[in-house]
Amino acid sequence: MIRKLLVKNVVLKGNSCDILINGNIIEKIESTINEDNAEIFDGQGMVVMPGFVNAHTHAAMTLTRGVCEDTPLQPWLQNVWAIEAKMDGDAIYWGTKLAIVEMLKSGTTNFNDMYWFIPRAYQAAEEMGIRATYTYVLLNGFDKAKAEAQKKECLDILDQSRSWNQRVKYGIAIHADYTVDEDTMVWGAELARKEGLILHTHIAETSTETFSEVEKSGLTPVQHYDKLGVLGDNVIAAHCVWLNEDDIAILGKHHVNVVHNVNSNLKLSSGYKFKYDELIAAGANVCLGTDGASSSNNLDMRESAKTMALLQKAWRNDPATMHLDDVMAVLSKNGSKALGVNAGEIAVGKLADIIFIDTDTEAFVPNYNFESNFIYAANSSCIKHVMVDGKFVMKDRHVDGEEEIRAKAREISSKLINA
Amino acid sequence: MIRKLLVKNVVLKGNSCDILINGNIIEKIESTINEDNAEIFDGQGMVVMPGFVNAHTHAAMTLTRGVCEDTPLQPWLQNVWAIEAKMDGDAIYWGTKLAIVEMLKSGTTNFNDMYWFIPRAYQAAEEMGIRATYTYVLLNGFDKAKAEAQKKECLDILDQSRSWNQRVKYGIAIHADYTVDEDTMVWGAELARKEGLILHTHIAETSTETFSEVEKSGLTPVQHYDKLGVLGDNVIAAHCVWLNEDDIAILGKHHVNVVHNVNSNLKLSSGYKFKYDELIAAGANVCLGTDGASSSNNLDMRESAKTMALLQKAWRNDPATMHLDDVMAVLSKNGSKALGVNAGEIAVGKLADIIFIDTDTEAFVPNYNFESNFIYAANSSCIKHVMVDGKFVMKDRHVDGEEEIRAKAREISSKLINA
Repeated sequence: MIRKLLVKNVVLKGNSCDILINGNIIEKIESTINEDNAEIFDGQGMVVMPGFVNAHTHAAMTLTRGVCEDTPLQPWLQNVWAIEAKMDGDAIYWGTKLAIVEMLKSGTTNFNDMYWFIPRAYQAAEEMGIRATYTYVLLNGFDKAKAEAQKKECLDILDQSRSWNQRVKYGIAIHADYTVDEDTMVWGAELARKEGLILHTHIAETSTETFSEVEKSGLTPVQHYDKLGVLGDNVIAAHCVWLNEDDIAILGKHHVNVVHNVNSNLKLSSGYKFKYDELIAAGANVCLGTDGASSSNNLDMRESAKTMALLQKAWRNDPATMHLDDVMAVLSKNGSKALGVNAGEIAVGKLADIIFIDTDTEAFVPNYNFESNFIYAANSSCIKHVMVDGKFVMKDRHVDGEEEIRAKAREISSKLINA
Repeated sequence: MIRKLLVKNVVLKGNSCDILINGNIIEKIESTINEDNAEIFDGQGMVVMPGFVNAHTHAAMTLTRGVCEDTPLQPWLQNVWAIEAKMDGDAIYWGTKLAIVEMLKSGTTNFNDMYWFIPRAYQAAEEMGIRATYTYVLLNGFDKAKAEAQKKECLDILDQSRSWNQRVKYGIAIHADYTVDEDTMVWGAELARKEGLILHTHIAETSTETFSEVEKSGLTPVQHYDKLGVLGDNVIAAHCVWLNEDDIAILGKHHVNVVHNVNSNLKLSSGYKFKYDELIAAGANVCLGTDGASSSNNLDMRESAKTMALLQKAWRNDPATMHLDDVMAVLSKNGSKALGVNAGEIAVGKLADIIFIDTDTEAFVPNYNFESNFIYAANSSCIKHVMVDGKFVMKDRHVDGEEEIRAKAREISSKLINA
């Protein structure tokens, strides 16, 4: 028999209500629901919101948090790469678990990952109850043998993924067009299209990368992807900081999902004039991501959304831009759409990925505008419970096993950093 | 007999130590201290840091949090002014208390305020144990009668302030040079100098204000202040977003304390290219502030420090700028210097304004670089205890009376907003 859960006395968009969840689906939302055969959870006046979708991260990079600060990009990259080279499946498993604890505590219920040792990373999400997409990284540095070996591994994991828990999806990643040969890019794009998978990639993150491509080939990165025919509404393109008008039109035409990774872009000085309005107007779907903790330091989507909104208002010199409705959409709805998941809003028929907010703190006094208080005044410690797929995965700010995860991650990262 | 407090087993700059506090002064810091006549507090491995100094705020504006979002500056100002006009002494008292709860919870132990009904605001800080400077706002709109009435009230409160608790100081504020006549500016500056008080003011917050002054008088705001002879190392100048090279040289020459209010400046689109490096090089003292909660939404200094650092790295296109040492100095040491308070570092002979950080959370795993984790990865909920002047004012994230303060502030703000 499918389990029913009746959530009582929560606040949804300003109104008190009850929510009936049937298995992993929201079945009913009414001011008062009575249901005999349901387990009851009293929400005690907490505000409910859809969980956040982190549309671009490298989860296990939590193990490299804070290892190289206040340095130029090249030494930073060398440092991070040297640590990554030492990571094994165990490191990925515990590093991903650490990331999942952190994501749940800041309201993220679904994330799009691009990293290594996918079967071990999968195990972390499977065990912890979060929703995720793990994308296999095609990154061959134009080495033919490497390209072939990766294609084979990519297909092997695709086979394994057919028996995965439905919460977790497999996808394909093209690292970037300056690290992967064109044949492999096309191979990855065709595979993703045929299998109905996400195609995840980095595009136009830095000016150096973007303009050196233009100099070499006469094409911008976006024009290059377009020429190869890899763009489509299954593509999730991280960064896209350096776009010209034609690039924006191309991304819009193909309804590409563009992920702004604001804190990472600021910290690494990659660029800050992200073209939110223009991308939306052109037809792209704009999402938000944290990138890896090596550059963003944390995986806090609420905090990223605040920075994104403040920065849009500042660089455009317009306090009326980046309305709170857009901020909320970027946090949940747009990312769910990008990942092809039937969530991102609390509505009948949607997956029950729900976060519960305690408003009895100073940040919510006065509570004239809840969204404003949540984004601009609070921090993520106001998120008290988190539900994914109809099940509580964080209660009273505690995630099962978090103490062991911190201990293991400390032990492993200490070996990686000091070895 | 003066009370001694022995804080055991804390971590200071990476080393485990004990701290002996004699009354309100740090008397001894050693790896192990034994002291018979002291009360013992076990710090359980928590990291200690000096409390933060919010060098520019309007505390009671917490009551206007979130009331007018995503609108251009003029309607925003009209809205906020209409609410402010209805505030009485009671509103200021409870609004300031709400601000103090919020500041303590985010590690602020000292703040520089510019607002109305100072005797009631004083009462809030006196009762709650925080350190503060309340500056009387000279704001007359060039009205002679108003100017005289304000001067009289300013002197009356100066007299009262002579019997204030030593934790709380009185100061003078010139609202801005476009809202106060020159005679009053000079009068305020001379009074502050004679009495050894802080002179608090807003300078060059927006481009409109700055360039319309230049157009009218041929002088920038900073040049105008300089011509009147009001600048000095007792001046705390908020904003200073729009400075030319000459302005920076003037502020440096007079060792003015310049307060960056980064979140407020971003949210209101006032400008974002704050000249941190240039001001420091010229000889100014740069501090950090939150401004009022009407524009910054919260009073969280750690969060502001993160935004400041990210933004400096981004607009200067240099990931190595705004080193963590500078970020930490801006949070505590520089603000203490600006306010003439013997605090801002944990060292023998300094005032015991200390915050205690719980590092057993994901943000501090790995804990390779504590300052990086604290600024870039954590949020302020990691601040567990706060001590001001040798006394605990927050323990286990609870401030005495906070429930009543939230209830009263809700009640009052609801009347102000809906009346």
